[in-house]
Amino acid sequence: MRIVIAGFGTVGRGFAEVLQMKSDLLSSLDDKIKIVAAFDSKSYVTDADGLDPLILVKRKKDTGSVGSDAMKEGTDVLDSVEYDVLVDTSPTDIRTGGDGLRYIEHALKHGKDVITVNKGPLALKFRELNELAEKNGAVLRFEGSVGGAMPIINLCAENLKGERVRSIRGIFNGTCNFILSRMDTGLPFEQALREAQQLGYAESDPSYDIEGIDTACKVVILANSIFSRDVTFSDVSITGITSVSAEAIALASDHDMVIRLIGEVSDTVLEVSPRLIPKGHPLSVSGTLNTAQIITDLAGPITVSGRGAGRIETASAILSDLIAIIDRRR
Amino acid sequence: MRIVIAGFGTVGRGFAEVLQMKSDLLSSLDDKIKIVAAFDSKSYVTDADGLDPLILVKRKKDTGSVGSDAMKEGTDVLDSVEYDVLVDTSPTDIRTGGDGLRYIEHALKHGKDVITVNKGPLALKFRELNELAEKNGAVLRFEGSVGGAMPIINLCAENLKGERVRSIRGIFNGTCNFILSRMDTGLPFEQALREAQQLGYAESDPSYDIEGIDTACKVVILANSIFSRDVTFSDVSITGITSVSAEAIALASDHDMVIRLIGEVSDTVLEVSPRLIPKGHPLSVSGTLNTAQIITDLAGPITVSGRGAGRIETASAILSDLIAIIDRRR
Repeated sequence: MRIVIAGFGTVGRGFAEVLQMKSDLLSSLDDKIKIVAAFDSKSYVTDADGLDPLILVKRKKDTGSVGSDAMKEGTDVLDSVEYDVLVDTSPTDIRTGGDGLRYIEHALKHGKDVITVNKGPLALKFRELNELAEKNGAVLRFEGSVGGAMPIINLCAENLKGERVRSIRGIFNGTCNFILSRMDTGLPFEQALREAQQLGYAESDPSYDIEGIDTACKVVILANSIFSRDVTFSDVSITGITSVSAEAIALASDHDMVIRLIGEVSDTVLEVSPRLIPKGHPLSVSGTLNTAQIITDLAGPITVSGRGAGRIETASAILSDLIAIIDRRR
Repeated sequence: MRIVIAGFGTVGRGFAEVLQMKSDLLSSLDDKIKIVAAFDSKSYVTDADGLDPLILVKRKKDTGSVGSDAMKEGTDVLDSVEYDVLVDTSPTDIRTGGDGLRYIEHALKHGKDVITVNKGPLALKFRELNELAEKNGAVLRFEGSVGGAMPIINLCAENLKGERVRSIRGIFNGTCNFILSRMDTGLPFEQALREAQQLGYAESDPSYDIEGIDTACKVVILANSIFSRDVTFSDVSITGITSVSAEAIALASDHDMVIRLIGEVSDTVLEVSPRLIPKGHPLSVSGTLNTAQIITDLAGPITVSGRGAGRIETASAILSDLIAIIDRRR
């Protein structure tokens, strides 16, 4: 299995580290597994004989670039190597789908399997990308795009294949959940946000998280992949957490409730909004974990939780997709 | 796919109902799926052309017997039909493995795939049964044996195949958790137990649950299947909940803790005991749900919860194993 890593940022680097950490396991599943290309926004590197993951990681750390050659068009890099799987970890662009969208389309058109954790292409062009994959006999997997290391996409599509999933409600943004959890202790929004920024949970421009955009992307991916809907980002009714006041949280607490930013999806619902959740409910959790409650016809409620972000955690979701692709090819 | 249902009690009946409910889905995966035999302790029925699940369910309800013929030796029933999968739902016998053990061994010896929810055979003879399956090219699956509808066995073995699972700690017995949750509100043990019995959560002889035996069986199954250990029921250090006092619970509560019956398994630990759990921790949940926290090397903590018992819920776990077997054969 010949792998190309597109977008060698935090997650791409984490994935290279994971390939190294799990080299014994992976070679036992596929003795020809190797990275044949890697690129970021500034540089690229290719080697048909296989690149050493640790050298890529080190070069990126030392120089800020994964490759030794100045970047050309990413699709040209893809055309210049023989490969089997594109691992797209390029940054999310929710307006256009960004570079990732072009890379994914290019790979699928050429019948290559794709693993992506990039929410932009999936939230904007899910149906088109899946049709492209199907038409060209390729596989598109994206476990890490929703909930990071929390198992949900493959769990629903594979383990729960016999169930009819009636609804999914969940906490899909650890930054918002951290802020709301801190507000539970009496902090005002601005202070909780500042704390999240100081701890590295929130970006200096936190709007993508706190306005509910990130959660909306995930809700769209779940709607299309688990509920076979054909919706896009603009179809989601979105309310973020910026207008959640300390007073509202105190009032909720008086009634043994907390406020959490919940993404909800079913055959008819597609919504992101702050909701009152009874204390003790699976969705009343505090901190940065992601949590989802999946309601099915036979099993009833199934709840899953896990780390929604993080270099190695997100890479672990890519690894699970990679192993599924290897198993499928055997 | 020709199915034999052994042990047509609550879960066997639930599985027949599920086969009927999901007949469209199942026929789309395998157009030759049918039940060719079913038996309980008193009776059996076979039909190479396929038995109607609803007639089986009705006869069992009306007469207490699934079949029209008086039961002979179960392995003789197995020998009298051509079949592909044995679904064993016979009752758990933790001393000898019971009838289920003989049926499973018989099926595996003849190269038939087996799905079981019967903890006895798995807790007593896990290694032997797996070796038998491997030797004869058969598959042994048992998702429903731990946690009912809570996904855990296949999640660890398949979705998390790339992870090294470091430990699993969980609430694997809904009856005990119900009793302890009620004790959180101030009820003494005896009264909470009586309530559980009145609600049908606990048997008239509740020792199997409250002495931790049921949880120990599940811990053994996890140890053997997820941690590749070779342990049996007698290897588990077991303390039940019978000596948990109202005073201990009140004292725990003063320190913002609850007491829960936790099964823990790792490469070195194999234990069932009441533990202090901080309120707000994923394992501090109340009620009859099962919950497990899986700690892995890459993903960190992953928590799952679901209904640990119930006719349709346990049958849903059998369905997921059945679909995996169908997919594997395609």
